[in-house]
Amino acid sequence: MKDTVGVAILVSGGGTNLQAIIDAKAAGQLPSCELKAVISNKPEAYALRRAEKAGIPAYVVPKIGRGEAAQVEFEERVDEIIRRSGAEVTVLAGFMCILSENFVKKYPERIINVHPALIPSFCGKGFYGLRVHEAALSYGVKVTGATVHFVNEIPDGGRIIMQKAVDVKEGDTPETLQRRVMEEAEWKILPASLEKVCADILAARRNDAMNDQL
Amino acid sequence: MKDTVGVAILVSGGGTNLQAIIDAKAAGQLPSCELKAVISNKPEAYALRRAEKAGIPAYVVPKIGRGEAAQVEFEERVDEIIRRSGAEVTVLAGFMCILSENFVKKYPERIINVHPALIPSFCGKGFYGLRVHEAALSYGVKVTGATVHFVNEIPDGGRIIMQKAVDVKEGDTPETLQRRVMEEAEWKILPASLEKVCADILAARRNDAMNDQL
Repeated sequence: MKDTVGVAILVSGGGTNLQAIIDAKAAGQLPSCELKAVISNKPEAYALRRAEKAGIPAYVVPKIGRGEAAQVEFEERVDEIIRRSGAEVTVLAGFMCILSENFVKKYPERIINVHPALIPSFCGKGFYGLRVHEAALSYGVKVTGATVHFVNEIPDGGRIIMQKAVDVKEGDTPETLQRRVMEEAEWKILPASLEKVCADILAARRNDAMNDQL
Repeated sequence: MKDTVGVAILVSGGGTNLQAIIDAKAAGQLPSCELKAVISNKPEAYALRRAEKAGIPAYVVPKIGRGEAAQVEFEERVDEIIRRSGAEVTVLAGFMCILSENFVKKYPERIINVHPALIPSFCGKGFYGLRVHEAALSYGVKVTGATVHFVNEIPDGGRIIMQKAVDVKEGDTPETLQRRVMEEAEWKILPASLEKVCADILAARRNDAMNDQL
């Protein structure tokens, strides 16, 4: 029986969260994961360079056009790469496309996402990127953080895997807060959650195999 | 000019948050505060004993009957004790009565409350006591905490003074989580916030006095 779980990482931009995963793998912190594919919807995403440097197959799947047909076509191509690569777990690491309910339901508790707030605060529709930190500062919270969760059909609604709190500081701007939440929370809990999910899959598989032998 | 701000503390029950304030005062951590009065709506509240032991005048103001007239009568009596005691800042420390918009508006940014969650999570109408922790566990958050905020006419809606995060642990019940949030967050940030609010009032007063002399 294989002793790792294949992982695909979906990206759109700079790929700092991808880098955190690559670094954790290089440091031996992801023994249950094998990084199989990086898929970007943007050909210019620097994340693709990071994947190449780390020796991970990198793919570009641009989304062409709008509407349901374009979405179906896009998701079919992403899905094919994921399946062919042998990935069982997919990480959304700064992936700026919405995945349809149809796609998400095919992979229950197999797609994970990182959200830059302590869900249920500042999450759901309309809360993405810098807007999350603008909302937190405008509300006046003194503690925010990040959440890694499974993706289901409700935006930011899937089961929470890990969360980490980060203090807001006097004089923070959305930009300084975004950076601190990345450094102190996202880059730590995303690789740790990925390892946990893959280790849990392997443990369940070993358990099933033992039961089969009985 | 006086160099402390008088504080009244409203309670209904055991008074562990009151005790945290009393202990902080005894430890010299509240140099800007003078504890003037403890007011309970329940004659049997153990918080009254804690006040007596600490030498703080303790008052019972039962709320008799329901409806607006009873509320007005109750609040007038509370208000009179607060004013006569010389308190300028009022702390709601496990006070289980709702204060009317009318009462609250008389003391803008002078009434502070502690809520056992990281606002805006698990707050507002219906979220009090153990229910807050039941909601957090049922949602599946991995981080919760406490918030000290000013009281305004919106439930848990006033400006946030301090927040502190607390990790949820595997196997937590609402009761174990409630206790940990008290110990690790509420008992720390409530006295610290009270001192900050009173110190800020004194600093503003000194500033005004200096400007008057110019």
